[in-house]
Amino acid sequence: MNIVDLIEKKKRGYSLTKDEINYIISSYMSGTVSESQVAAWLMAVCFKGMSVEETAFLTEALGKSGKVINFDELSSKVIDKHSTGGVGDKVTITLIPLLAAAGMPVAKLADRGLGSVAGTVDKLESIPNFNTNLSTHAIVNQVKNINAVIASQADDLASADKRMYVLRNYIAAVDSDYLLASSIIAKKIASGASNIIIDVKYGSGAYKDSPEDAVQLSKLMVEVGKLVNKSVTAIVSSMEEPLGRAVGNALEVIEAIQFLKGEIKKGDLAELTYAIASTVLLQMEMFDNSKEADLYLKSLVNSGKALEKFRELIIAQGGAAEVLDNYDKFTLPSFKVECESKKNGFVQIINAHNISLALKELGAARENSSKPIDLSVGIYLNKKSGEYVHKGETLYTIYSNSEEATKAAQRFCDDAFSINDTKPPVNNLIYKIISSKEEDDDV
Amino acid sequence: MNIVDLIEKKKRGYSLTKDEINYIISSYMSGTVSESQVAAWLMAVCFKGMSVEETAFLTEALGKSGKVINFDELSSKVIDKHSTGGVGDKVTITLIPLLAAAGMPVAKLADRGLGSVAGTVDKLESIPNFNTNLSTHAIVNQVKNINAVIASQADDLASADKRMYVLRNYIAAVDSDYLLASSIIAKKIASGASNIIIDVKYGSGAYKDSPEDAVQLSKLMVEVGKLVNKSVTAIVSSMEEPLGRAVGNALEVIEAIQFLKGEIKKGDLAELTYAIASTVLLQMEMFDNSKEADLYLKSLVNSGKALEKFRELIIAQGGAAEVLDNYDKFTLPSFKVECESKKNGFVQIINAHNISLALKELGAARENSSKPIDLSVGIYLNKKSGEYVHKGETLYTIYSNSEEATKAAQRFCDDAFSINDTKPPVNNLIYKIISSKEEDDDV
Repeated sequence: MNIVDLIEKKKRGYSLTKDEINYIISSYMSGTVSESQVAAWLMAVCFKGMSVEETAFLTEALGKSGKVINFDELSSKVIDKHSTGGVGDKVTITLIPLLAAAGMPVAKLADRGLGSVAGTVDKLESIPNFNTNLSTHAIVNQVKNINAVIASQADDLASADKRMYVLRNYIAAVDSDYLLASSIIAKKIASGASNIIIDVKYGSGAYKDSPEDAVQLSKLMVEVGKLVNKSVTAIVSSMEEPLGRAVGNALEVIEAIQFLKGEIKKGDLAELTYAIASTVLLQMEMFDNSKEADLYLKSLVNSGKALEKFRELIIAQGGAAEVLDNYDKFTLPSFKVECESKKNGFVQIINAHNISLALKELGAARENSSKPIDLSVGIYLNKKSGEYVHKGETLYTIYSNSEEATKAAQRFCDDAFSINDTKPPVNNLIYKIISSKEEDDDV
Repeated sequence: MNIVDLIEKKKRGYSLTKDEINYIISSYMSGTVSESQVAAWLMAVCFKGMSVEETAFLTEALGKSGKVINFDELSSKVIDKHSTGGVGDKVTITLIPLLAAAGMPVAKLADRGLGSVAGTVDKLESIPNFNTNLSTHAIVNQVKNINAVIASQADDLASADKRMYVLRNYIAAVDSDYLLASSIIAKKIASGASNIIIDVKYGSGAYKDSPEDAVQLSKLMVEVGKLVNKSVTAIVSSMEEPLGRAVGNALEVIEAIQFLKGEIKKGDLAELTYAIASTVLLQMEMFDNSKEADLYLKSLVNSGKALEKFRELIIAQGGAAEVLDNYDKFTLPSFKVECESKKNGFVQIINAHNISLALKELGAARENSSKPIDLSVGIYLNKKSGEYVHKGETLYTIYSNSEEATKAAQRFCDDAFSINDTKPPVNNLIYKIISSKEEDDDV
């Protein structure tokens, strides 16, 4: 087999065989195929795509390119959750304790953020001493003991995916469905979970512009899941507007805690968390209708059980659990600026992309994986779409450590808000749920 | 400027500016842009193409990425010739002495072959001690002294092109018109020639399948030439069948010598050599019609002046000029096998691609730039298209050093010949001549 021929084959739009895909990945790891050859092949994939089978071959080759966590000693199936990424998306932090409190074993392997948003690992590191660098042994043990773990993807898990993920970011080959799908599900093969729930976002703050594009990616992941023996469920949700009111690392964890305390009962964050959680409970056949599942999940929040599960998780991973009771234990920024609305009216939409640019200015996200980020800064959206604001009332609050950055962020935030006299229609947060078990659910 | 953004821009089909192209090439050479990023950009160019201006920007950036040979001290314009490559193409070796004998200064910077055919440098190295590694100073001096030089492209000429040429071969990014055109003309910017004649081949033994595709590439090169101040003339010629009767390094040099001795007056090799040479004489305004030019050129061959020029050139470059009089001075293969025709009939065509595969089997071409090649082996086509062959008569002769390789080569050669009862129509060797000075000439 010859890599040049394989690049040529993909360039001409043919599908590669399982042996050919395995050859590329194993030669990449052994060094007989160069980084630039893999770059050329990835770029050809961006243009020509892959068949579902081919995507599954790649997924499996990447997933098994390092260690694979083995949960066989647990009696129950293990759940993992993934989001394609969005602004203010702290649903991993609200969901994992909630599912674990419901008795579901959850092992979440999380990323650091690349590009315009920070990752769950970054967010959790705003809790002093919280450790996400766990051995596979520690991961399995923690799930056995407390049903929940949130760890960062170790170098020895899906090693080829880890390397290729970095390469893709350096060669503008991020936005291919086939590469996205294989990278996401490969991580789940390595993480050992059998049931995977994926929040596929669309809108100004997501990779995917339209719900239709997000559905296409979702269907591909569900199909690939079938071929690699993983039960994949995709929830297609809107990321036109940031999720919840807090964006920025520590601020988002605080909002997640508020949710787990039962202080946030309405709005998009609560809606999405409960929707994903109840989908999982139905899939795991704990309930047979979503109403019952929903009631049960709310009882876990209202009784404090979900919060207690998060406390257990923080303690198990060495973190300072006192943050739950005293938000001053987070590293805080030096000042905040409350920014007023310049007119009366209903907030129509808050452009998530503009908010992510504001976050970048504040230093809350990294441009590439080498830069450190400021975990303390961020933005609080005092008003969200559908809410009325009076001129002079606080529209949003910037938490910052730099006056210059604040000004730049403020410009992006002002651009993000559109306000006028008419009450906007209710924005459908969840567009569709796609799973291998059933027909698509339109929501 | 950021390379990831530039790759993305090209991926979306936009043209890059001069500054952006210069940034890519200079960062590539300084190492701040990686080989894999350039690979990804090249692959995006393969899919999305470039504008003529963009191609000219790239051509200039590549051409000036190293030393540039300066012929200003010569009173006349300097000519360079290039072929896009074909099987049995020894026209550089017949043409350069002929043009130099006509008083034209010719500085040919040649390649080693990559892929299925050997290059002029390889062929000339079959002459014992022939040295193509000349300094730019030696190149200029030799043109001053004897009007002719055939040197290999030194590492310090068009350095970025040299590096990118190797990269393109490793990532299946060879067959883009834009990359081909910029690479060819960049070399000529570095070689200092002002008038460039390019033999653009089409057919089974060439990059381009059809004459129309070859015309497209030719027009692009002529246009790019205008933008970088080079007079470019393209001759579109057929490479359906190997050129001449000899293929393989030493064998081709012997055939070129036979031509220069006036022993080959008819057939494709003579036709193409005279056509290119007379095009040059017209372009340089030495004659105003091709009939006169042709007569003059033939007189240079018949009088022995062209052969004497080749002798001067071999001696100037340290080679054993006695090969001209005694072909045994070439390194010869251990045996030859005369292969008989299995039927009576006219040779319709000899598939050039199959002959190139036979050459590879014999070891006369390299798969990649690191392998040594056998200069002694090759194939002699005793019959060419339009000629009648009797069953049992020698159709072709294999010169070889290995019985196993001979058998494999024989299979490809047998497949290459198609023979049947009807006399085939005369194959038009030259399809079109395209230059910046005049309208296209249909031939």
